[in-house]
Amino acid sequence: MKYGILKISLIFFFVACQPELVNLDKAKKAVAEYYDYGTYEKDCKKLIDEAVEFIETIDPYDSNAVVFDIDETALDNYRYIKSIGFGYILDEWNKWVNRAEAPPNKEVKRFYDYLRSKKIRIIFLSGRHEETYQATVKNLRSAGYTEYDTLIIRNDNELNVSASEFKSRIRKELAEKGYRIIANIGDQKSDFEGGYSGYVIKLPNYLYQVD
Amino acid sequence: MKYGILKISLIFFFVACQPELVNLDKAKKAVAEYYDYGTYEKDCKKLIDEAVEFIETIDPYDSNAVVFDIDETALDNYRYIKSIGFGYILDEWNKWVNRAEAPPNKEVKRFYDYLRSKKIRIIFLSGRHEETYQATVKNLRSAGYTEYDTLIIRNDNELNVSASEFKSRIRKELAEKGYRIIANIGDQKSDFEGGYSGYVIKLPNYLYQVD
Repeated sequence: MKYGILKISLIFFFVACQPELVNLDKAKKAVAEYYDYGTYEKDCKKLIDEAVEFIETIDPYDSNAVVFDIDETALDNYRYIKSIGFGYILDEWNKWVNRAEAPPNKEVKRFYDYLRSKKIRIIFLSGRHEETYQATVKNLRSAGYTEYDTLIIRNDNELNVSASEFKSRIRKELAEKGYRIIANIGDQKSDFEGGYSGYVIKLPNYLYQVD
Repeated sequence: MKYGILKISLIFFFVACQPELVNLDKAKKAVAEYYDYGTYEKDCKKLIDEAVEFIETIDPYDSNAVVFDIDETALDNYRYIKSIGFGYILDEWNKWVNRAEAPPNKEVKRFYDYLRSKKIRIIFLSGRHEETYQATVKNLRSAGYTEYDTLIIRNDNELNVSASEFKSRIRKELAEKGYRIIANIGDQKSDFEGGYSGYVIKLPNYLYQVD
């Protein structure tokens, strides 16, 4: 009897629950609700609160640094992505990036302000391409990220390297230069793979996945 | 004990299975696999085979007619929609429609050819807008839909009416004019609501939903 119920429940699970194949408009609606109704911000706030608690326990060294990813971390492209029906066209994305109009993620900005008040060094590390460097500097500034040690994005030789390989190599180089990476904040698993990440702050991202 | 297992299974179901909130790239990948690996075509074929079996049983009247929806029914916009990352921008959509390059859904075209061989009348009924009329005629022709009684799309006064209201009103008018609507083929629930549909052939559409 008990196995009967278990079996029925499992069948129910596998039949009713097909998280893989859903109508994209339905998936988009659920994602829009997550972002529009405050759940995203609430989830970010919780992660930042925990990160601040952790940073409070860290010994203050002048070489202490936190690595920030940019898109869907320091900057928030949600409104733009929603405006194009949650699609992706590379040329259009580059146009958007070059407009340098993305607002900050408020919770990430709060974390940045906190770190600056603690004199902790800030490093921006992004898979964005070389030709968007000036637009990225401009957008970080307009979003309030005015003080940082360095901004590193991919040069044209590195476009075939995965985000994960690129970022872990750079973090290793930063560590070798003497930076003490105490935390790393991003929205993709690939932001953290390969070590030298310190305390990991993985923000939610239901919009896209980067390998 | 048995309720314990049921409870655990139900918790498992509600926690593990959140069909509503998934990463959009994951949802897009599943949808792309459905279309790219032949499952969509197989599902369409089954529905058309069944519809042909039904039509074989119908008394032959000169007024027998089948109503065809256009997008994701007679014409297949999948490649275009995939090329823009499964997004939607109205202006870009109109440009695509005006290019008149959508291929036919092969199974729907097979159904159309079968109906023509039976001298059954064909009516195209679409929520597309008035300004795309000529492009729609052109695309239907290039996709092989060369013979039909009429093509009805929305005029500018009807843009605020739902697809469902518009289409059911037109089907009623067609019936009043003497058409015997024996079947209706489309990809949206709104293609069939409000009666005068006959045998319903609801094709799958995981790309979008129209109310």
